[in-house]
Amino acid sequence: MWLRISCDLTFDIEVTTPFILMLRPRSGLQQWVASDEFKITPNISVIEFTDNYGNLCQRLVAPPGHFSICTKADIKTSELVDVGFGAAFIEIQNLPDSVLSYLLPSRYCESDRFSEMAMSITAHQSPGYDQVATIETWLRNTISYIPGSSNYPISAIEVNFKQSGVCRDLAHLGIALCRSLSIPARMVVGYLYNLEPMDMHAWFEAYVGGRWYTFDATQAGPKGGYVAIGYGHDAADVAMYNQFGPSVYPMSQVVQVELIEENL
Amino acid sequence: MWLRISCDLTFDIEVTTPFILMLRPRSGLQQWVASDEFKITPNISVIEFTDNYGNLCQRLVAPPGHFSICTKADIKTSELVDVGFGAAFIEIQNLPDSVLSYLLPSRYCESDRFSEMAMSITAHQSPGYDQVATIETWLRNTISYIPGSSNYPISAIEVNFKQSGVCRDLAHLGIALCRSLSIPARMVVGYLYNLEPMDMHAWFEAYVGGRWYTFDATQAGPKGGYVAIGYGHDAADVAMYNQFGPSVYPMSQVVQVELIEENL
Amino acid sequence: MWLRISCDLTFDIEVTTPFILMLRPRSGLQQWVASDEFKITPNISVIEFTDNYGNLCQRLVAPPGHFSICTKADIKTSELVDVGFGAAFIEIQNLPDSVLSYLLPSRYCESDRFSEMAMSITAHQSPGYDQVATIETWLRNTISYIPGSSNYPISAIEVNFKQSGVCRDLAHLGIALCRSLSIPARMVVGYLYNLEPMDMHAWFEAYVGGRWYTFDATQAGPKGGYVAIGYGHDAADVAMYNQFGPSVYPMSQVVQVELIEENL
Amino acid sequence: MWLRISCDLTFDIEVTTPFILMLRPRSGLQQWVASDEFKITPNISVIEFTDNYGNLCQRLVAPPGHFSICTKADIKTSELVDVGFGAAFIEIQNLPDSVLSYLLPSRYCESDRFSEMAMSITAHQSPGYDQVATIETWLRNTISYIPGSSNYPISAIEVNFKQSGVCRDLAHLGIALCRSLSIPARMVVGYLYNLEPMDMHAWFEAYVGGRWYTFDATQAGPKGGYVAIGYGHDAADVAMYNQFGPSVYPMSQVVQVELIEENL
Repeated sequence: MWLRISCDLTFDIEVTTPFILMLRPRSGLQQWVASDEFKITPNISVIEFTDNYGNLCQRLVAPPGHFSICTKADIKTSELVDVGFGAAFIEIQNLPDSVLSYLLPSRYCESDRFSEMAMSITAHQSPGYDQVATIETWLRNTISYIPGSSNYPISAIEVNFKQSGVCRDLAHLGIALCRSLSIPARMVVGYLYNLEPMDMHAWFEAYVGGRWYTFDATQAGPKGGYVAIGYGHDAADVAMYNQFGPSVYPMSQVVQVELIEENL
Repeated sequence: MWLRISCDLTFDIEVTTPFILMLRPRSGLQQWVASDEFKITPNISVIEFTDNYGNLCQRLVAPPGHFSICTKADIKTSELVDVGFGAAFIEIQNLPDSVLSYLLPSRYCESDRFSEMAMSITAHQSPGYDQVATIETWLRNTISYIPGSSNYPISAIEVNFKQSGVCRDLAHLGIALCRSLSIPARMVVGYLYNLEPMDMHAWFEAYVGGRWYTFDATQAGPKGGYVAIGYGHDAADVAMYNQFGPSVYPMSQVVQVELIEENL
Repeated sequence: MWLRISCDLTFDIEVTTPFILMLRPRSGLQQWVASDEFKITPNISVIEFTDNYGNLCQRLVAPPGHFSICTKADIKTSELVDVGFGAAFIEIQNLPDSVLSYLLPSRYCESDRFSEMAMSITAHQSPGYDQVATIETWLRNTISYIPGSSNYPISAIEVNFKQSGVCRDLAHLGIALCRSLSIPARMVVGYLYNLEPMDMHAWFEAYVGGRWYTFDATQAGPKGGYVAIGYGHDAADVAMYNQFGPSVYPMSQVVQVELIEENL
Repeated sequence: MWLRISCDLTFDIEVTTPFILMLRPRSGLQQWVASDEFKITPNISVIEFTDNYGNLCQRLVAPPGHFSICTKADIKTSELVDVGFGAAFIEIQNLPDSVLSYLLPSRYCESDRFSEMAMSITAHQSPGYDQVATIETWLRNTISYIPGSSNYPISAIEVNFKQSGVCRDLAHLGIALCRSLSIPARMVVGYLYNLEPMDMHAWFEAYVGGRWYTFDATQAGPKGGYVAIGYGHDAADVAMYNQFGPSVYPMSQVVQVELIEENL
């Protein structure tokens, strides 16, 4: 399916503020970016780089005054994410080097503290995809998904204590549980077609059966229409923007995802 | 300055043909891609990856029949390339690790065979930028630049023997001469505003004074309006497309570069 | 100065256990490995790889029974770490891309929760090295350094609550405080000559004045004799070994650092 | 099998000379370095880095006078290289991104000029391993292997013209022929047990059946006892040393490979 995604952010900057943005989608195994726009107003100097995860980031220094970022892209993505019941747990010694770091605990996914809980949730499941699917279902049934209920990332321990959270929070807890079972898991942020209410979104992927599979406990079941913007260990790696100096909050943030005809 | 660049390629494919393309510009220190389109017809599956040099490449398999690639981008680039007379030769031991491979001979730049010639051309020049500028001038005055005169890359030795060539050939000889003086040099392919006749272009960069500088012996002197698509050791690394199996030639190739208003 | 370092670990393994080790030093800007031994008993198959931080890691599967790792190396390192009072804070926009991730919070360094505390500790210090030196002094005077007092990593928040810790804990709190001031900071694990009691050690580095500087709040002041084994965001990235499956603890761990004559 | 390899090089340096060395083996899929020594006399400052191919390189500046490099290592390697008759040609679209550059022509392997010859040599062979084995046999039977007959690298075209060469030359021609058939091929330099006469050695690898296989036209048939020091596109990437400024030749070069008991 073809989607047109856009995100417009506006700020009112008081003091000169360095930003690092992560808002530009790139083509990968799961999506193809056929066209792309990235406008920054005022027309200041921007330097783009690729971070350790392959995400496109932009560095800039916003001057005082009105500051806006408008991104838009036409993207081909799957109608339905792959589902892989039965996909096997990959023994540590057989994992590719590049996924090993996704076994480690990270800022918002304290997987070193979740072993017992993960084993209890997934008891009787065969190792691999089925464990992750059980974790996803458990999250869906246990942690209340309340969009807009939090402004800053909280960690898996905090989410588990609170028993509710935004999409990012559910993903953090899901990732922590997977890693504690020695299943590599990573965070993805981006867009989701027909998300209610529309906003930037977050979900997670787990590495089983020799590949990454998508999981999203905020939705009733597997869907398609995902557009990834950033991959990382957790929210610390994939902030839409990191801003330095006195805190600045967007005056407006407008996110849109619409279905388009095949891009011709 | 803001430029709108485009390149449209059409092929008539007889047998299923794998391609690797390098036609998509990316933002970097010297240019900012504000918008970008990349259309492939028919609408087949494409996988994008980043090569060792940071270039964006697309892998695909073209089915028999009409096949076309249309790329377009709006890009901010310099009005005039930096000129750095006096910029010093950097001692080998002080070069960054990442530029060392640009000292080595490569497929089309047999720098191991040009020491005497390079020393002769640059005699009495102070080491660094001034040597490269002298090489550029020597190329301009010695090797006849004849656009369209060659269909496949030839090497510096062959160019020197032939005493004429296309933009790529002059760049190859320039690179070989620089490297033989222990100055890192690399190939750049892309677009140039007001190039006559308009086509894809190639030039070279040399690392002196702690940074890369642009050199282009095909033009009368320093200009701006360069848009880079690919960086590499020589033409082998930065083909617009690599195609495997029976040779396929484009039926048409239309390249355009126009000046646009600031991208708003 | 030349040091001979060694670390011998023995385990009694009950069930086949995958390990990822990080115990092999490598040559870098600050040290030169003139010789190196790495013996694993029994003689099983080992695969070495380099992680994202450039650390050498070994992957293996330990069979049930006695299992030991003996590493030894002769290394040249500084007599005294560089001290850089006055070295300036580097503005975010001027930091190299490669250090940006060391500004982010990580598993054991929740820098997103330490802004006020860091500003209070470093009030009146000029931005940069002097801030970090003040943090180091504050740690030395405030957090009791109690070697051997903890078996698993705890986070900066937990360390600050406990007001005591092992070398790793002091480093975590130091890193969190630096990052909250927008100073890139990273964890280093390795050896320290004359450490009392001798054991593996951990300290931190901060990026100011355009380079990394060493800080170690467990020692009375700047010294030399550091040998690095691993660099990372925090202890999660640089475990001496990660082991999967039922927990296994070393039966013995013998660490030695001795001064040797110049390696001839 | 366990081998102890060593290479001692001595130079008499007249003017201060920067060197980049590639003489230190590293552990990988095919070998395990259990111990390693690297001594440079006089005791000057050395900086080690890892190049784009994962090879360990050392940068240093040799002062005038006697200069020597002594390297030694105990290494576990295969008794016999894997042989894979029938291993399939991998379609371009299915090759991993990381091997694609080994399809391109390089300094000493002008694969763009060998298509017809490669097809003629391998006519009637099934695509993949069997083609490469046929190329290897053809080289063995056609190009006279004359150790010590050349002091500097020559290219595949030159080797084919000369019809004789050193190990490096046979490897270059083998690589060029493979690549012209769209089979990724790369150069390996290192040691070979029982090589006659003993010296540093060079051979090549081809990527078929989803992995790299070893080929060596200088030997009568498949053997073991290979120790790799460097991997690259061709000899330009894997020189034992690159030296800058007036040419310097080793006064002596002593290479040894001996069989040792299992490293205990």
